[in-house]
Amino acid sequence: MAKELTLRSENYSQWYNDLVMKADLAENSVVRGCMVIKPYGYAIWEKMQAELDRMFKETGHVNAYFPLFIPKSFFSKEADHVEGFAKECAVVTHYRLKNSPDGKGVIVDPDAKLEEELIVRPTSETIIWNTYKNWIHSYRDLPILCNQWANVVRWEMRTRLFLRTSEFLWQEGHTAHATSQEAMEETERMINVYAEFAEKFMAVPVIKGAKSPNERFAGALETFTIEALMQDGKALQSGTSHFLGQNFAKAFDVRFTNNEGVEDFVWATSWGVSTRLVGALIMAHSDDNGLVLPPKLAPYQVVIVPIYKNMEQLAKISEKVNEIIPALKARGISVKYDSQDTKKPGWKFAEYELKGVPVRLAIGPRDLENGTVEVARRDTLTKEVVSLENIDLFVADLLEDIQSNIYTKAAEFRALNTTKVDSWDEFKKVLNSKGGFILAHWDGTTETEVKIKDETKATIRCIPFDSEEEEGTCVYSGKPSKKRVIFALAY
Amino acid sequence: MAKELTLRSENYSQWYNDLVMKADLAENSVVRGCMVIKPYGYAIWEKMQAELDRMFKETGHVNAYFPLFIPKSFFSKEADHVEGFAKECAVVTHYRLKNSPDGKGVIVDPDAKLEEELIVRPTSETIIWNTYKNWIHSYRDLPILCNQWANVVRWEMRTRLFLRTSEFLWQEGHTAHATSQEAMEETERMINVYAEFAEKFMAVPVIKGAKSPNERFAGALETFTIEALMQDGKALQSGTSHFLGQNFAKAFDVRFTNNEGVEDFVWATSWGVSTRLVGALIMAHSDDNGLVLPPKLAPYQVVIVPIYKNMEQLAKISEKVNEIIPALKARGISVKYDSQDTKKPGWKFAEYELKGVPVRLAIGPRDLENGTVEVARRDTLTKEVVSLENIDLFVADLLEDIQSNIYTKAAEFRALNTTKVDSWDEFKKVLNSKGGFILAHWDGTTETEVKIKDETKATIRCIPFDSEEEEGTCVYSGKPSKKRVIFALAY
Repeated sequence: MAKELTLRSENYSQWYNDLVMKADLAENSVVRGCMVIKPYGYAIWEKMQAELDRMFKETGHVNAYFPLFIPKSFFSKEADHVEGFAKECAVVTHYRLKNSPDGKGVIVDPDAKLEEELIVRPTSETIIWNTYKNWIHSYRDLPILCNQWANVVRWEMRTRLFLRTSEFLWQEGHTAHATSQEAMEETERMINVYAEFAEKFMAVPVIKGAKSPNERFAGALETFTIEALMQDGKALQSGTSHFLGQNFAKAFDVRFTNNEGVEDFVWATSWGVSTRLVGALIMAHSDDNGLVLPPKLAPYQVVIVPIYKNMEQLAKISEKVNEIIPALKARGISVKYDSQDTKKPGWKFAEYELKGVPVRLAIGPRDLENGTVEVARRDTLTKEVVSLENIDLFVADLLEDIQSNIYTKAAEFRALNTTKVDSWDEFKKVLNSKGGFILAHWDGTTETEVKIKDETKATIRCIPFDSEEEEGTCVYSGKPSKKRVIFALAY
Repeated sequence: MAKELTLRSENYSQWYNDLVMKADLAENSVVRGCMVIKPYGYAIWEKMQAELDRMFKETGHVNAYFPLFIPKSFFSKEADHVEGFAKECAVVTHYRLKNSPDGKGVIVDPDAKLEEELIVRPTSETIIWNTYKNWIHSYRDLPILCNQWANVVRWEMRTRLFLRTSEFLWQEGHTAHATSQEAMEETERMINVYAEFAEKFMAVPVIKGAKSPNERFAGALETFTIEALMQDGKALQSGTSHFLGQNFAKAFDVRFTNNEGVEDFVWATSWGVSTRLVGALIMAHSDDNGLVLPPKLAPYQVVIVPIYKNMEQLAKISEKVNEIIPALKARGISVKYDSQDTKKPGWKFAEYELKGVPVRLAIGPRDLENGTVEVARRDTLTKEVVSLENIDLFVADLLEDIQSNIYTKAAEFRALNTTKVDSWDEFKKVLNSKGGFILAHWDGTTETEVKIKDETKATIRCIPFDSEEEEGTCVYSGKPSKKRVIFALAY
């Protein structure tokens, strides 16, 4: 099966599609732009959810659920928001079907037209702030720190599995605060949570920074982002956290009495990550043989394959394996033992390589005699024969090593593909040859940003938080600049 | 606050609504029929999800995700299904809004009309079986044991928080099998999982049985149900598991080659429980003082309230509490310490009573001197002073006792409110006086069932699995019957 993957060097985009399909992660559904997330792909998303949810709760958040539908008029209440979100969306106009008069199937019942159309949520700021209005009266009701795990719909014309689909799964945090400072601290806290998740669990190094005004979320005063670099040199925005100021409070008239008895509008943040992260995970680490999954997010971390010639041998191997499995599980390691007789070891090896299982153990009759096992690691594709004694400890250490090795490899790739450029010619040359992150001076105007995008398709991914103050001139306009920002082609 | 609850004896329905609102579980949203599940209510649902998900995985199931939207034509493919589901539903007809020509807000763009309307899923059999068609070729591809956690929409005219809302959250299992027997075993396995969950975690005794043909799921050959009894004597269907035969496989042409090389249609089941279970939990146990939550599903199991006159006392109490909390947590007990100074102990006592926290610990200066703590249990509203030594063990035992006591109380209530009746007069008399479950003989015809419903509103809740064979005559028609079935008024 692995052989059927397109090579990354030949066609990266096709390689990605092949991999998502062949590793059974997801597929396109019959409904345009909507995907089916298959069990193996969903298991990765579940692992992500579990870790993120834990991190949200540790930082004081609680989950809640708000309606799927939003009245059309809500989108007009926040001026920027309507431009950003209300255009390409799924519109519910009727609430009933009836039998077709010709007896063939069902038709929409014209008598069941809604007075006001409902929009399937593309994001929930409007309905949530309309709800918060009734929850907030005094500073004692603040902060509100809600998160929602939900599906959202944005009608997309060009879709790609996980990366851009009309319906996707995500979480959206929506918090309400008494002061601007508290809301800004929350905005920063959550981009830090996302960065920690990306680096520690996904093993994907990210750059934290602020979006340029032009790239901000519709309705936000400030958007923070984490940007990851994919193997084809393109950036992928992996999570955003928005400081919304008092915009939504004003749009939905959400006021409170502060601790000095003065009435004020409430301060807001929102932040989200989506199933897009599964796409990022795939594109950051995988190779021409298939998926490479970081152990912390792999649906199972170890697969055991028996090598045997007859059922008697299999029975003996299984006996030994049934001693190993509890020892591994006791260390919190997830294991699959694939003893199905209808497939050959070679097929199994290729299958689990394709599926990115971090560690493979193969045990044959000679191993039983010698008290050994063959250990193969997916990230480096290397094998070694080790003693079965303390194999649980060996595998636990190996998984940690793989997790850190995958991260290091991605970090080295990013370092190699991050280039400082100081002229417009160099900018275009680097962008067209190696791609990657380009650190360049920018004059801070939307005008220049848009011209650069029009000429090269490159966008400002972010103004990094850790960018040093440095005198320079804008690569495009030659005007003075005090900081480098990151440009890249992006998904 | 607790005083503001309507009494159950006065108006059970109003008591329920008051409780859901005042205990901060949920509220009606601005979108007709859709609810907002507030953090405290959602925390209960999350606990339910976690246990159910674990039980599904232990029985071999995996999670996946299928599209929110279903093409309208899919509903016409299974003849019974279209009658049951395709009528009251949310219909997406357009995919774009545009600015209104009058400059006021946005309107639906008439140029963005979908060729075929999309239905927001009321249940997913159709889209899933259309997907399974591509996954299944041979018996080696079977069984498929998928579950989905999702939101669904059924346009309801009369809604009640948790019990019946236009949008609700649920899980839907959809399995595919090579044989009828295997599918039937799965149908039984899952109704048993639901019953175990209801009894062990919700502390709600349920009756397992088969639905009469008239009450079956649209498209099923057999529907199994668990039926619970609420405190007002009405039944609540709490979970269903359907044997779908080959109906959906035939509708979507899903065939496979069996192990003898013969082509056949695939056998199916589906099964689901929803946020309705939160409503069942509330109505089964709660009282005029508020919620009564079984410890296994309570968002927090213990609340600690300090009783103090000055900040010095509070500091000393907090010091002691900070010794107790880790000991409780080490036993897997979730604790909240409410030391906020802006509320009086009396307010806190009423608040946590309303919210159904199973155990309340109150500690004052005298307790510190004596090494004691006042322990109050929510289920019986009784209090006792106990030693602080080994308080963790005491609370752990107490929580188990409360869990089992709540179950026993509900089981006793059900026993008292289950009545065998043998004549039509008695049937009507019992139904109108005490209500509850009525065990009566029925002639097995839909005709009689419908007449009974028309005359009394009572429906056949189920034909219990454990119903004994017994010669009798139908209470309504006088025709012979061999089994009693359960009638009740129902939610």
